[in-house]
Amino acid sequence: MTGEPTPSLWFRCRRIVEFRDTDAAGIAHFSAFFFWMESAEHEFLRELGLRVVDNNPKDAETLLRDLPPGEEHRKGLEVSWPRVSVSADYKAAVRFGDNLDVFIAVAKRGTCSLSYQFRFENSGSLVATGTVVVVRCLMRQGLKPLPVKIPEDILEQMKSYQLPDSDA
Amino acid sequence: MTGEPTPSLWFRCRRIVEFRDTDAAGIAHFSAFFFWMESAEHEFLRELGLRVVDNNPKDAETLLRDLPPGEEHRKGLEVSWPRVSVSADYKAAVRFGDNLDVFIAVAKRGTCSLSYQFRFENSGSLVATGTVVVVRCLMRQGLKPLPVKIPEDILEQMKSYQLPDSDA
Amino acid sequence: MTGEPTPSLWFRCRRIVEFRDTDAAGIAHFSAFFFWMESAEHEFLRELGLRVVDNNPKDAETLLRDLPPGEEHRKGLEVSWPRVSVSADYKAAVRFGDNLDVFIAVAKRGTCSLSYQFRFENSGSLVATGTVVVVRCLMRQGLKPLPVKIPEDILEQMKSYQLPDSDA
Amino acid sequence: MTGEPTPSLWFRCRRIVEFRDTDAAGIAHFSAFFFWMESAEHEFLRELGLRVVDNNPKDAETLLRDLPPGEEHRKGLEVSWPRVSVSADYKAAVRFGDNLDVFIAVAKRGTCSLSYQFRFENSGSLVATGTVVVVRCLMRQGLKPLPVKIPEDILEQMKSYQLPDSDA
Repeated sequence: MTGEPTPSLWFRCRRIVEFRDTDAAGIAHFSAFFFWMESAEHEFLRELGLRVVDNNPKDAETLLRDLPPGEEHRKGLEVSWPRVSVSADYKAAVRFGDNLDVFIAVAKRGTCSLSYQFRFENSGSLVATGTVVVVRCLMRQGLKPLPVKIPEDILEQMKSYQLPDSDA
Repeated sequence: MTGEPTPSLWFRCRRIVEFRDTDAAGIAHFSAFFFWMESAEHEFLRELGLRVVDNNPKDAETLLRDLPPGEEHRKGLEVSWPRVSVSADYKAAVRFGDNLDVFIAVAKRGTCSLSYQFRFENSGSLVATGTVVVVRCLMRQGLKPLPVKIPEDILEQMKSYQLPDSDA
Repeated sequence: MTGEPTPSLWFRCRRIVEFRDTDAAGIAHFSAFFFWMESAEHEFLRELGLRVVDNNPKDAETLLRDLPPGEEHRKGLEVSWPRVSVSADYKAAVRFGDNLDVFIAVAKRGTCSLSYQFRFENSGSLVATGTVVVVRCLMRQGLKPLPVKIPEDILEQMKSYQLPDSDA
Repeated sequence: MTGEPTPSLWFRCRRIVEFRDTDAAGIAHFSAFFFWMESAEHEFLRELGLRVVDNNPKDAETLLRDLPPGEEHRKGLEVSWPRVSVSADYKAAVRFGDNLDVFIAVAKRGTCSLSYQFRFENSGSLVATGTVVVVRCLMRQGLKPLPVKIPEDILEQMKSYQLPDSDA
């Protein structure tokens, strides 16, 4: 009984290693994997019909009701997914022009947060893994983002991409 | 009688070629020079005591008086310097760890715009030149930036860095 | 009689404005256009069946015959297209998530160099233009790239993308 | 008895948040912290008199003796520190123009690898932490980097920056 994720749970994107992503060691710079993770996360959200930055969230009524004291008169609501923790582990180098498969799945669904897992494959061979933890937040200009509950229907949608064994 | 700029007119910054700036050709990526130009422009503005993004411009009264119809009730003013045109010419490659001298001077002072010229030197030898044209603008969220006049005292300050011959 | 380019001469790519491409002004950073130009140029070369970095050039025999004195014993040949001059003019801002059409065409075909022109459109409206001049070079580790002639068949292939009026 | 690191063990760099490092959320992009970690690591190595990419390593004799079968005739040696694992945790946003203190210390010294810890402070308040694990490697063009032993004198130099409690 292993935690080996079922392939079909992973959402797949394709990315090409652009020249801008390379460095003087002749390979993709380690930072590029974080750009690909972010970009894959956004493609995943769009695939689910969700907006990365949502100015018209479905739970607006709830959000407005629960605004912190002193902010009751806020009109515009902007909800997004800032990240609080990220990591990457590198197994093999990738090079300019390589076509990568970027796989994303959900490792944990919390009240306000989501943990994503990533796998990067180059011609079928694993080259890197990564994790990203995001928190659904009300963005308030000049103030700290305010964590807010993830609506049930979003959690439900994510379920199809939830890894069976999330302790990986 | 040439337009060769007087060295003392140029404001000098130092930049080191970071690994993030390199590419798989083993040299600094051509885009890095634009980052250095922007960063040098900002260091230059700070040196003159000017804010890159100014939320409290000295000419606030004038700016408020001249607001376009329908925006009279605007309260916060944000003035900045978006760029409308940039270029770079490359003479020689620079590499990871190289210490660059970035020189900036003013080629033209217009009513709303400034043209900067840049020279990049590596151990005294010219490796690239560049130009950047910026327009002083009132930034209005979701709207096109609105060009506004550059105050006389700013134009006056820039004078000491104005190249004698601006047709270069 | 204008130099207005015939649309069909332009090779088109699609790019999405990624979050990494944005800045604190809420729009795509001006440098992003240079990354898109480079990436479009590479997509264009691949479309023509040309390698961006070619370790097995068809004119290897000629190249080897014409090696500079002292390099006659060079074995591996690497030919690429370093840029010597680039520029961009910005008409309107683009934002996170915008889908851009990037058009590339050839403005001039020289003996060793090519001048590309770029147009960026956002939902059919022109947001920026750009130019890039590249030189076909023999890359020699630690040495300056050596300009070499562009083979006739490459020049011929480029012809279909040559703008009728290249003085733009 | 806590693992709270003694401040003096940390090597400090200063970095300013450049405009290129910001994103449309109005803050520094999460990737910028990885660029700062890499850049601080390089400043740290230079401070110790070590070369980031070393073409003339002091242990050349040992390295040449231990070359893998088939590579005995290798002449040039290039030793560097590719990373195998990185992470960052974000506590607070930083903005364009902020002056950051980047602290680096050594968490673990292995036979071939080093684990660095990072702390980012903005006006004395902790905004992010990070980790980077690097492996000393012989770089071989087109081949996987080959892990090699870290010389004793380098490990000894690192000792002064080793955190007393490395389980953090």
